[in-house]
Amino acid sequence: MHLRLKQKPDVQSALGQYVDGVFSIPLQINYEDTDAGGVVYYGNYLGFMERARNAYLRTQGFPLRVLADQHHVLFVVTEARLKYLLPARLDDELHVTLRIVKTSGAGVEFEHLVLRGAECLVKGEIKLATLNSKTFQPCRIPKILKPSLCDI
Amino acid sequence: MHLRLKQKPDVQSALGQYVDGVFSIPLQINYEDTDAGGVVYYGNYLGFMERARNAYLRTQGFPLRVLADQHHVLFVVTEARLKYLLPARLDDELHVTLRIVKTSGAGVEFEHLVLRGAECLVKGEIKLATLNSKTFQPCRIPKILKPSLCDI
Amino acid sequence: MHLRLKQKPDVQSALGQYVDGVFSIPLQINYEDTDAGGVVYYGNYLGFMERARNAYLRTQGFPLRVLADQHHVLFVVTEARLKYLLPARLDDELHVTLRIVKTSGAGVEFEHLVLRGAECLVKGEIKLATLNSKTFQPCRIPKILKPSLCDI
Amino acid sequence: MHLRLKQKPDVQSALGQYVDGVFSIPLQINYEDTDAGGVVYYGNYLGFMERARNAYLRTQGFPLRVLADQHHVLFVVTEARLKYLLPARLDDELHVTLRIVKTSGAGVEFEHLVLRGAECLVKGEIKLATLNSKTFQPCRIPKILKPSLCDI
Repeated sequence: MHLRLKQKPDVQSALGQYVDGVFSIPLQINYEDTDAGGVVYYGNYLGFMERARNAYLRTQGFPLRVLADQHHVLFVVTEARLKYLLPARLDDELHVTLRIVKTSGAGVEFEHLVLRGAECLVKGEIKLATLNSKTFQPCRIPKILKPSLCDI
Repeated sequence: MHLRLKQKPDVQSALGQYVDGVFSIPLQINYEDTDAGGVVYYGNYLGFMERARNAYLRTQGFPLRVLADQHHVLFVVTEARLKYLLPARLDDELHVTLRIVKTSGAGVEFEHLVLRGAECLVKGEIKLATLNSKTFQPCRIPKILKPSLCDI
Repeated sequence: MHLRLKQKPDVQSALGQYVDGVFSIPLQINYEDTDAGGVVYYGNYLGFMERARNAYLRTQGFPLRVLADQHHVLFVVTEARLKYLLPARLDDELHVTLRIVKTSGAGVEFEHLVLRGAECLVKGEIKLATLNSKTFQPCRIPKILKPSLCDI
Repeated sequence: MHLRLKQKPDVQSALGQYVDGVFSIPLQINYEDTDAGGVVYYGNYLGFMERARNAYLRTQGFPLRVLADQHHVLFVVTEARLKYLLPARLDDELHVTLRIVKTSGAGVEFEHLVLRGAECLVKGEIKLATLNSKTFQPCRIPKILKPSLCDI
């Protein structure tokens, strides 16, 4: 059971889309993403997942600089788990999804899938903690962000 | 004076757009693109420019794998010149443009601009040569590709 | 309890060193490794860990191309788990360690630590499977490699 | 004719070495450096060249953070020119050299070669400017750095 993400009415569709509580961005694989094995390099999926999180926050009205400058909050990754099921290749047209699995006072856990059509290539679970953007000390999630990180 | 790129009628607008003979893709700056100087890392612009070239070829009907598998041609970069005018930053919404500056029997030269609104942040001139995708030997540009690489 | 790695007598010390069954490579942090948060980008540690694995295999007499061309075997990552304990910063002089946690007929699990002196910054558990380098099908670990991947 | 770099007597040999006025670092090619063409990705050479510059500055007693914190100076790249002569491949053992081509009041130009034995694979000319690390305004090269950036 997962929390359902709420789509803001004014979301910029170019950034991504919401389907059934899941946010998703499109992704084209270029040479920069691949390695000499002919597939996407295993470290690069963490970048794709960051893009999905930032696009989601942006559609919710919280670009990273707004979060840092106006709401004094940064996200830092504390844990990442990746399962590599199938390789992605040059020119593939993928989607990277995002779901919020769990949220606590000072952290949030995302689940990302990297999909090629209906096939799941990579699954990621990423835990982030919130820091005060001035002191770099752990801090609670600002109230204004809560509706975007859980719907309870 | 530059060649004008011809827009195919069925271009997928999500990939990029044509304005006045210039093809352009949108780009959001994420943490993965930046460095500890607080700006985009100088090497990463070459990746952005590759994305623009691949998106252009795709809108013309020539994804990289189609080029390699059906038309037996690969592009390799032989020269790159970059001028860094202004830094791009986290969360910036940029465009990367592409123009074809020159085309010869076995090569093509692209000019790319990385723009933030009307400001030009980085200018790149990238020369590519065509190789046979089986022999990796230099080869001439396939006829079918020529209309996409020049309009003469 | 972990397997102890055996140092080959002719190991090139420039690649890394063995201390108490742990192999370790030095690492300097450059701008390319960092992000606008002023710290190493969370995805880049997976590259550092790959460097440690390849250096280890090389000191054991098995550079990747020798493995693929002579022993017909490739490693692919099937799972990665990372815990981010402390941030690494520009100019940091780090070490990336490697231990073999488990080995089976067709796979091996490595544990990596990214250390700054005695401080552990990041811990990684990386599972790899062996593929035949011609067919890309799963295959057993070649006998000649076994002493390097376990000491039983 | 190029300026000759002066080796400091206490240089850490692990970082690089000086031969005939040229500073050089060793480099192993890993999967992270390559692309699906089976060769090193064209954008990654700029990272290799940064590593050579930082290692050089470090052997001269000026790690980047010392430059920023004690001498209040940052380097920013203003121009890069790369010629790709031959491809580097997985497992290649390369060297990246550094020479100082020109130095002025507020800038320095480096030439880098990426070598595989005696073969030159890539040639780079990188121009950098000095900024005050507090104001981010252009500034003159600090006197203490001059002997490391020219020997006149």
